[in-house]
Amino acid sequence: MISVQEAKNIVLNSTQDFGVEEIPFIKSVGRILKEAIVADRDFPPFNRVSMDGIAIDFQSFKNGQRSFKIEGIQAAGSEQITLQNSENCIEVMTGAVLPNNANTVIRYEDVEIKNGFAKIIPEGICDAQNIHNKGKDGKKGDVLIEENALISAAEIGVLATVGKSLVKVAKQPKVMIVSTGDELVGVDEIPLDHQIRRSNVFTLVSLLERLHIPSETDHITDDKPILKSKIETYLQEYDVLLFSGAVSKGKYDFLPEVFDELGVEKLFHTVAQRPGKPFFYGRVASLNVTEQFVNQTKKNETIVFGFPGNPISTFVNCLAYFYPWYYKSVGLEVDEETAILGEDVFFKPNLEYFLQVKLESKFGHLVAFPVSGNGSGDLASLVKTDAFIQLPNDKTEFKKGEVFPIIKYR
Amino acid sequence: MISVQEAKNIVLNSTQDFGVEEIPFIKSVGRILKEAIVADRDFPPFNRVSMDGIAIDFQSFKNGQRSFKIEGIQAAGSEQITLQNSENCIEVMTGAVLPNNANTVIRYEDVEIKNGFAKIIPEGICDAQNIHNKGKDGKKGDVLIEENALISAAEIGVLATVGKSLVKVAKQPKVMIVSTGDELVGVDEIPLDHQIRRSNVFTLVSLLERLHIPSETDHITDDKPILKSKIETYLQEYDVLLFSGAVSKGKYDFLPEVFDELGVEKLFHTVAQRPGKPFFYGRVASLNVTEQFVNQTKKNETIVFGFPGNPISTFVNCLAYFYPWYYKSVGLEVDEETAILGEDVFFKPNLEYFLQVKLESKFGHLVAFPVSGNGSGDLASLVKTDAFIQLPNDKTEFKKGEVFPIIKYR
Repeated sequence: MISVQEAKNIVLNSTQDFGVEEIPFIKSVGRILKEAIVADRDFPPFNRVSMDGIAIDFQSFKNGQRSFKIEGIQAAGSEQITLQNSENCIEVMTGAVLPNNANTVIRYEDVEIKNGFAKIIPEGICDAQNIHNKGKDGKKGDVLIEENALISAAEIGVLATVGKSLVKVAKQPKVMIVSTGDELVGVDEIPLDHQIRRSNVFTLVSLLERLHIPSETDHITDDKPILKSKIETYLQEYDVLLFSGAVSKGKYDFLPEVFDELGVEKLFHTVAQRPGKPFFYGRVASLNVTEQFVNQTKKNETIVFGFPGNPISTFVNCLAYFYPWYYKSVGLEVDEETAILGEDVFFKPNLEYFLQVKLESKFGHLVAFPVSGNGSGDLASLVKTDAFIQLPNDKTEFKKGEVFPIIKYR
Repeated sequence: MISVQEAKNIVLNSTQDFGVEEIPFIKSVGRILKEAIVADRDFPPFNRVSMDGIAIDFQSFKNGQRSFKIEGIQAAGSEQITLQNSENCIEVMTGAVLPNNANTVIRYEDVEIKNGFAKIIPEGICDAQNIHNKGKDGKKGDVLIEENALISAAEIGVLATVGKSLVKVAKQPKVMIVSTGDELVGVDEIPLDHQIRRSNVFTLVSLLERLHIPSETDHITDDKPILKSKIETYLQEYDVLLFSGAVSKGKYDFLPEVFDELGVEKLFHTVAQRPGKPFFYGRVASLNVTEQFVNQTKKNETIVFGFPGNPISTFVNCLAYFYPWYYKSVGLEVDEETAILGEDVFFKPNLEYFLQVKLESKFGHLVAFPVSGNGSGDLASLVKTDAFIQLPNDKTEFKKGEVFPIIKYR
């Protein structure tokens, strides 16, 4: 049995590179950028009027002139015009190019327009005011978004602005999610007394959806030859297999044997944590690769996450191991989050404790209040909580006010 | 000009109800639940074995017996069997029904199995251990998820467990996003010197995508008759129109006039804030509803958000007004978030200040560090920040360490 930290190190030392693909920028939210985004021109690309009003030559104002004949209009989206007479003015609109020979904009609120003349009311006019100068936000060639950024609405605006209608992003891993357990029936079915409905695969699908990773699912009965034959195929076709169940000590927990027989290298099995202890993690080089698969984009290694079948175990291990593995694989750096424990906790077993908490943000402080569930089987308790707080196994008493890492799921 | 709080009150007093629809549960992440989810049976539905091992009658152990003949196996997913002889045991698997006449489970780690007998090693065995009792997590009829919950992966697991393959959720509003401004060209085009590419509509599409709201987009030139005719149609077809641009004081800012002519009731125009001041907000009852539209699901009111055209203005107003309007419309309660200002800020204008900040989570504290952009036109500055901190207009000095509301966009 290894520690959570050792397990995490092994997981982070076996990340993969799924390559890069080019997709329409508007579809790229949630994906990881795989090119630096560079300004294709100065921003703004011209001296840009930033208030609706009039543009003048400041020297005339300085010389005492207050009334300016309107020479013309410079609309946004029109070619730059020229102020012909430095004692005149041009009406200008937000977003327009500043007219030639003009250098200062006075907003409509500060002028009185009558009979083709604009009269400036206040005295406090500054040279070059209300102009957003060419190149002020960025120069042509500046990096506006660094490679490996997570794309959100803010980045979408920049991609549009620089004309990146197609953008390079990290390819997502091809993932198969498999549940096992003969007690499981479909969501649409009425379970018999000794049966329950499948739920973990759907939870995993949703947790992967948060990372914008599409996935496929299957359910395999607790039958060793069937398990072996199906998994052999999946190892060839997928980058990652996520399993829920069949990794503990039960008579029908065939997965560890099947993995072994299929050449999956066990990197660890069983982690000193609660819940989620009987977690299996392994990898395999693609074996018996047929012509068919060679021609696909399948990588030459498959990673196997064998999560314990209890709902909370599967849930916490997906967040605690698969998420960081994915982040590192695609090059995303994610900061650790922490919270302040809201009440004392006592936990005796020599295990790292992932405790469900309800988070409250108060006066800039994030406080985590433990919500005691009924153990690793109590799926409904996840509905009442926001995160796991991660309590280390080097002590048994955790005091209100102490700070620990958290893993949020909302 | 009204205050941000007044504007927000008006927005929250003009929310809409878009009705309810039933969708496949696996597609429901991010949607708002519109029914209470009730346990269809006890959870667990039977006395559930929670460790792989052997099941015994505790009385025999108490009487001093340590070696138990193995009578049979109770697998997960099999009908309940019966322990025939209270001095024997049954091998049991996690997830299985506890056999009749057995009441205590000893895990495999604590027994030695040889020649069909299981010998219990430790002395510290407790009555009824390793059993997850029927109904412990919830009783049939218990509400497991309240109406109006935001559905996440945790809720998906519960929906699957209780067999809700179809689930009732709030319908999303039908949204049209319109940009204006003759200086704008498409993302695929090479702009002339006085032009820039459209970006705000795509930012808005992405901000709505975060709420799982699909939207359509259009660009209309600064031509009043064309604006009027298109908007007239959109007012009939959509629940919400979001505009970017053409609401300020420019000669071609036709939207307020067009709205007026089309019978849009102006609820406010111009809010005491920076950026985003010339914000127009209005509503209109459906006018000239033709037979065609009556037969659609169109509501009898359309809400109009006219955001100022500067990128940051559009961005902040979508988050500060459209988001809360949507949350209240669909019945979702969202807690206000706050952060601690990381450095002193001085802001003189008598306006509420939405200042871009980079958030850092340290020791359970959320600290907001201002990142000064170059004003409301500097889209690239959004890439370097995570949130707006909302500084009220009742003072001009904001001290490091003070706490203010934030609006996160990552």
